[in-house]
Amino acid sequence: MPRYKLTLEYEGTHYAGWQTQPTDPTIQDALEKALAQILRKPIPVVGSGRTDSGVHAEGQVVHFDFDGELDKKSLLKSLWGVLPKDIAAWALEKVDEHFHARFDGIARQYRYQIVTRPSPLRRRWAWERYFELDPGRMRECAEMIKGTHDFESFCKHNPDVNHTNCEVSLSEIVSTGDGMLIYRIKANRFLHHMVRSLTGTMVDVGLGKRSVDSFKSLVFKPDRKSVGPTAPAKGLILEKVFYKK
Amino acid sequence: MPRYKLTLEYEGTHYAGWQTQPTDPTIQDALEKALAQILRKPIPVVGSGRTDSGVHAEGQVVHFDFDGELDKKSLLKSLWGVLPKDIAAWALEKVDEHFHARFDGIARQYRYQIVTRPSPLRRRWAWERYFELDPGRMRECAEMIKGTHDFESFCKHNPDVNHTNCEVSLSEIVSTGDGMLIYRIKANRFLHHMVRSLTGTMVDVGLGKRSVDSFKSLVFKPDRKSVGPTAPAKGLILEKVFYKK
Repeated sequence: MPRYKLTLEYEGTHYAGWQTQPTDPTIQDALEKALAQILRKPIPVVGSGRTDSGVHAEGQVVHFDFDGELDKKSLLKSLWGVLPKDIAAWALEKVDEHFHARFDGIARQYRYQIVTRPSPLRRRWAWERYFELDPGRMRECAEMIKGTHDFESFCKHNPDVNHTNCEVSLSEIVSTGDGMLIYRIKANRFLHHMVRSLTGTMVDVGLGKRSVDSFKSLVFKPDRKSVGPTAPAKGLILEKVFYKK
Repeated sequence: MPRYKLTLEYEGTHYAGWQTQPTDPTIQDALEKALAQILRKPIPVVGSGRTDSGVHAEGQVVHFDFDGELDKKSLLKSLWGVLPKDIAAWALEKVDEHFHARFDGIARQYRYQIVTRPSPLRRRWAWERYFELDPGRMRECAEMIKGTHDFESFCKHNPDVNHTNCEVSLSEIVSTGDGMLIYRIKANRFLHHMVRSLTGTMVDVGLGKRSVDSFKSLVFKPDRKSVGPTAPAKGLILEKVFYKK
């Protein structure tokens, strides 16, 4: 059966995350409902991975099967009309029937946004820390994450995960110069709460509440008990999922 | 009496513009109310200029007088606590007592945001035009605006304005490559609805509904009747007000 790849942007504020769950509304629910309404049959979708409650996405990827030819423009337009305003599908392509949104993903990229001054136009998707953060110290932390490390310090314990090593190919602090700091990270896999835990701990370093060395210890000698706070969901955005060509 | 210069960011969505008016709530009202509450006396403020209902600002500037020394951090912090969440003051400085937020402004810079694909994270502050716009044609229009021209075509008639010439020092179309087009313009003065009228007419050119030549005619032979639509307020942001050093 033909398989399709769909790319989504969403504001996660009003959803209990990506994945369908028994009670609260999720992005997956909303998308499956919209697709069923348009294509007149149940359309289960498979996402590239979960995003937590309140987390946003610019480039979440899903696949689904549909027995027929779908016109890109017309499906995207229909979805725009049917989906709630905080979810949008912006790219559709027909893919190989073995393509898998989750298992074929070779890397994901996230951005965490922090505003360091009151900012009505940016506060919805940013952690509001109205203090002076030292981006230089945070940059030192971001640098040492590059490469393959055991990120056990920076995740929620999960008995289903057999190891906590991740290969980080991008890890950078970007200061926009107008009151916003961005932490961007790309890795082959992410553990639960990993970006938010890294960000929260780096912010402690930026505030001077914790030394760069203590951050280094967490990276090289994992110890979940000494980690910093988990940054709030609202500042986190899934930017992109990467697949083999 | 000491004079202070305050810089504001605001989301204009829920306000009837900057300036106090008889009925609806305005940014100026909210700011004066907050300052009066904090400083325990009426504090009239003078803005660099009006912004229309629904228009936003990242760098609106106001001045006010206060008979005493104000501590920058503590006033900004108090304002953050007292102002509604969609208005924020992010810079305060003591200025010469002859400084005037409006009359001393030598230039203003605006940005108009257009999203060309459904974008939940950007739609609040952007004109949603889900069509293919040709940025090249729009860029040609933006280029010809540079310099001093009579912008009579691109404004609401106002009998109180004695001429409609403006000196434009920056006029550019920026394509972010991910579904957003920005029109940025800096000029010594702006006429009522000028940026929105320029943008609306340029979008018509970008859509192919109007030729670059017809845009050129409007710039060089003003004719208010042949102008395009006025782009909606929600995509417009006052970025910055420039003063002499």
